[in-house]
Amino acid sequence: MRIALGIEYDGSGFAGWQRQSGKRTIQSVVEQALSRVADAPIRVVCAGRTDAGVHAIEQVVHFDTESRRSERSWLLGANTALPDDVRILWVREIEPRFHARLSAIARYYRYEILNRPMRSALRPRQLTWCHAPLDVERMREGAVHLIGEHDFSSFRAQQCQSRSPFRRVHFLHVRREGERVVMEIAANAFVHHMVRNIAGVLMAVGAGKHDPAWVGELLSMRDRAQGGVTAPPDGLYLGGVCYPEEFGLARDTVFEHLPADARRYEPDDES
Amino acid sequence: MRIALGIEYDGSGFAGWQRQSGKRTIQSVVEQALSRVADAPIRVVCAGRTDAGVHAIEQVVHFDTESRRSERSWLLGANTALPDDVRILWVREIEPRFHARLSAIARYYRYEILNRPMRSALRPRQLTWCHAPLDVERMREGAVHLIGEHDFSSFRAQQCQSRSPFRRVHFLHVRREGERVVMEIAANAFVHHMVRNIAGVLMAVGAGKHDPAWVGELLSMRDRAQGGVTAPPDGLYLGGVCYPEEFGLARDTVFEHLPADARRYEPDDES
Repeated sequence: MRIALGIEYDGSGFAGWQRQSGKRTIQSVVEQALSRVADAPIRVVCAGRTDAGVHAIEQVVHFDTESRRSERSWLLGANTALPDDVRILWVREIEPRFHARLSAIARYYRYEILNRPMRSALRPRQLTWCHAPLDVERMREGAVHLIGEHDFSSFRAQQCQSRSPFRRVHFLHVRREGERVVMEIAANAFVHHMVRNIAGVLMAVGAGKHDPAWVGELLSMRDRAQGGVTAPPDGLYLGGVCYPEEFGLARDTVFEHLPADARRYEPDDES
Repeated sequence: MRIALGIEYDGSGFAGWQRQSGKRTIQSVVEQALSRVADAPIRVVCAGRTDAGVHAIEQVVHFDTESRRSERSWLLGANTALPDDVRILWVREIEPRFHARLSAIARYYRYEILNRPMRSALRPRQLTWCHAPLDVERMREGAVHLIGEHDFSSFRAQQCQSRSPFRRVHFLHVRREGERVVMEIAANAFVHHMVRNIAGVLMAVGAGKHDPAWVGELLSMRDRAQGGVTAPPDGLYLGGVCYPEEFGLARDTVFEHLPADARRYEPDDES
């Protein structure tokens, strides 16, 4: 039987999503909690592995099990066994052809910047701090260059293991909410550090260190060495994952902005 | 010389605002930080003492000192000496007749409720959790009874030391923001636990345990023993303090909703 889950977490206290021996990771605590409910070892597959310090509003995972439990038992049992900084939001029994990573049409990340002279006392590990005033209009002008299908080599960490540097960005919104600047980005998939590298570049543009046109120039160079600073993980959230309607999973309203022809990432699509 | 400050803090790690020997309090860490900059002992007076676990978006304090420092030196020096969960937002040299508590025309508190089946992983100590679905329309109907000048004995903690139970509530907004229900309340002043007692009563009304009219009945009983549950401190924030324009301090935009004749709390006003 295959089961899908939605998970919220505060990444501040974790060495990232992926299991690593001797480290506190989100995958480990989730697998431990589910194994306890199943009374058998459980291994989960996630939609997007997040780095150390990165949070999730809604990560999606699936796992296979022979243990028969109600959706409610999985949910309540696992949450009882989880630490305070990880919460399972929903549990759904799902068709075996569903795959948390491979079935995803799009992923959405949110990057939150506290833009004021003083650091945050309320969310020091959940907002990226930028004291230089950011011009959101300039950030938007820069962001336009990244929409659509591109070679994102200039925004890709050296350690990225993906075969292809091509990804399709569906939307990239930047707006001010009081003292915060919020960036929302959805793509078919992301190369490693892509959101943090985009955030670093747009912050440099917003602070007036570069012109908005620089974003397009960087992109066309296809060279990470020319790229900007990788922004810190603090303000980064995996916001949600969009699957085909046939699976019947609820979608975040942000996915209403997806183009009608959005489809899942296939490395062989790109040449 | 008299100096005024605005302060943001996460109350989760503190035994409240007020200095208490052997306990970690916000007043203590702020006084220690300022004393270090002044190179002399500093004692501060705040606009509103917050309880253990209560946060502040903007608390206001004043202090007197003989030490001559620029506003910038106070700000940067004190913030360097403060822990991560307390931040000074601004510093202003101010007339000696300014008093953080006595000069205030109004105080504004914010109460944030996470209204969904699962606790928060992202802000477990900064949101009050309510799993029963809340009907915001009913909460608004109940809130109407509390607007204006009333005897708030039914919403007043037994240990309240104020001479009078009368306070004037200027506005009390309740709205839904996604999974959260947010309550914003401004008054000339508050009796002890007044916001948490109001939040507890409105949550009971929103969850369908009582009719909205019950709020008016409770108020007219003037008896705390008849009152509802005191809601937890987690979701409570001192949002801001409003002073007469003559002092030249910036006001939160929420104070645009204050009535034109709002004036400071004078215990002898009420009979």
